[in-house]
Amino acid sequence: MQKRYLLTPGPTPVPTESLLSMAKPIIHHRTPQFKEILKEAVEGLRYVFQAKNDIFIFASSGTGAMESSISNLLSAGDKAIVIRGGKFGERFAEICEAYGVTPVNIDVEWGKPVSPEDIKRALDENKDAKAVYTTLCETSTGVVNDIRAIGEIVAKTDAVLVVDAISGLGSVEFKTDDWKVDIVIAGSQKGLMIPPGLAFVSVSQKAWKLIEASTLPKYYFCYKAAKKSADKDDTPYTPAVSLIIGLVEALKIIKVDTLEGVLARHKRMAQALKAAAGALGLELLAPDAPSDAVTSIKLPETIDGAKLVKTMRDTYGVGIAGGQAQLKGKIIRIASMGFMTQWDIIVAISCLEIVLKQMGHKFDLGSGVKAAEEIFAETKEGASV
Amino acid sequence: MQKRYLLTPGPTPVPTESLLSMAKPIIHHRTPQFKEILKEAVEGLRYVFQAKNDIFIFASSGTGAMESSISNLLSAGDKAIVIRGGKFGERFAEICEAYGVTPVNIDVEWGKPVSPEDIKRALDENKDAKAVYTTLCETSTGVVNDIRAIGEIVAKTDAVLVVDAISGLGSVEFKTDDWKVDIVIAGSQKGLMIPPGLAFVSVSQKAWKLIEASTLPKYYFCYKAAKKSADKDDTPYTPAVSLIIGLVEALKIIKVDTLEGVLARHKRMAQALKAAAGALGLELLAPDAPSDAVTSIKLPETIDGAKLVKTMRDTYGVGIAGGQAQLKGKIIRIASMGFMTQWDIIVAISCLEIVLKQMGHKFDLGSGVKAAEEIFAETKEGASV
Repeated sequence: MQKRYLLTPGPTPVPTESLLSMAKPIIHHRTPQFKEILKEAVEGLRYVFQAKNDIFIFASSGTGAMESSISNLLSAGDKAIVIRGGKFGERFAEICEAYGVTPVNIDVEWGKPVSPEDIKRALDENKDAKAVYTTLCETSTGVVNDIRAIGEIVAKTDAVLVVDAISGLGSVEFKTDDWKVDIVIAGSQKGLMIPPGLAFVSVSQKAWKLIEASTLPKYYFCYKAAKKSADKDDTPYTPAVSLIIGLVEALKIIKVDTLEGVLARHKRMAQALKAAAGALGLELLAPDAPSDAVTSIKLPETIDGAKLVKTMRDTYGVGIAGGQAQLKGKIIRIASMGFMTQWDIIVAISCLEIVLKQMGHKFDLGSGVKAAEEIFAETKEGASV
Repeated sequence: MQKRYLLTPGPTPVPTESLLSMAKPIIHHRTPQFKEILKEAVEGLRYVFQAKNDIFIFASSGTGAMESSISNLLSAGDKAIVIRGGKFGERFAEICEAYGVTPVNIDVEWGKPVSPEDIKRALDENKDAKAVYTTLCETSTGVVNDIRAIGEIVAKTDAVLVVDAISGLGSVEFKTDDWKVDIVIAGSQKGLMIPPGLAFVSVSQKAWKLIEASTLPKYYFCYKAAKKSADKDDTPYTPAVSLIIGLVEALKIIKVDTLEGVLARHKRMAQALKAAAGALGLELLAPDAPSDAVTSIKLPETIDGAKLVKTMRDTYGVGIAGGQAQLKGKIIRIASMGFMTQWDIIVAISCLEIVLKQMGHKFDLGSGVKAAEEIFAETKEGASV
């Protein structure tokens, strides 16, 4: 018997309502019935995005939507400012290069947020930069960037702001319109609580002007084709029907709980993870700008991070993530995202304690859970808020 | 969003494999396909019962099978020794009375096991008693009775031994054949990990002799009709098809983990609950003979048990049980039964701590979980054992 507890930063657990809706017999997508579902999904997304902009749903991973934000906005030889503070920031730069776009990279130490001032300086020095590519939450480090401040800066220029909000949307505060974000990219398997397979893109009026001028090749991810269909509650190519049906159910849950309630739940879970790490004598990778979606915890040199993650997953059924690239084996990442409650966080901390103890790390057994419980005991609100 | 964690002493959580198998399109029961399924279910039950005896599957709750053990074995005016040490022992006496059978009640203080010597004395004093009715685990108190010792005593008489093993089978050690138990009653929604709706009865050769002589009215639960069908891998009346299909999957899990492994997991979870209760300054209701299936914890007079259970369930999504009858509001019962792991136990203890703290009980926050973690850290075995 293996009972599994999933606390990875995507995929995240899927609510029962979504699972059941996706298990229903499949329907055809060129039907009035599906048009209604698609409309409902886009309306629900508009609430989570806090956006009046166009929103498109693609059957793809988040990376496909990241690529679309380059192929639709830019032309060969264009310059784009790219914030590289983790694996996903680096991906934007890789895609630029693949398309013959010149990335002006702002390299940020992994675990630190980008300084909005650095973006301002890069824009001043590169007046021909067409766009700024950054991330809301860097899933690889657990850093959240100050998109509100960045939005203010970019809005004063001709450049558009593209934000990879894949692992932040629905988990941390984010306001597409108010924060003047031109392109927002999101995915289904994080705060939106659905299995991987859907990507979302919102497009501002300012972005549309750039799209008109873009000459890079695109077809499947073409925003103009997507808009033409979306205006008729349709998609240009076959949509991932069951995932969109599941999404509608997940969005209903967010609507009922309210975005404020959902974010407060995420914040409390992340606070508990941070408190627990401290109690176990472990440091945070991103103490300055920690995301509420995923908490990265540094491991002592004596602890093999890969073995820790493997033991938690294979022996104890508790899935968390290790570090990526240069952080491999050196950190662990525990998600507090989507269909998770404080009890899932308690399970993750308790399992971490048991395995750390077995691996020889010195700390008072139970102290991590105690620190988390102190956070949870502060409020009388339950797991549902 | 309400994510639920179920730790009630039945129904217990259902494994994914069983849930998915039960969601498949329904099949007809008078088919070779279903005969194979029924055969596999009975073989799997035989392993869990540790019995070569006949085993019948009824579509009913456990109470239906309890009734069948009176209507099939006895005749009006017969005498039966009944152990009343909780709500379910009392139920046997009530059924006896409903059928015109005279119960010779052995009343045991709730929270204590029956003394096998008392049964010996009752049999000596009532040589005409046809049967002894007792429970393996009294779900209402969390007591486990010494069925092995009782079996030795009853086997030396002409009486048959009937054991309600509804909440014990698959959770605590129990050996139908070795312990000379003539009738074993079990249900689907406890250690067997399936939703309520199935009851199981095993019948020994000694019991069949009594059945032949029985004149009480019976039809749906008639063992003779059940045997006639069972010999052809069939059932006299419509079986609960999907539940039996789900049962086969659950029994496969038990087979793979082995009964020893399953019982060891239950024991460790129950040990952790007991240790946690002690750390929280709470007493056990049944310290002398605690069941590994359900742990009953006494509450201080200052704590309203009904409110505690309601808050844990409705505010925090964590389902445990309160007391029944005279124990209402005075105890809580936390199951460690079936598709549960040490992490579910940690969730229950953590939630109990949070709510007890809110209700004013004095203890060190986190001390219950710490005590449980000390049990779990002792072994390198994972949640799966």
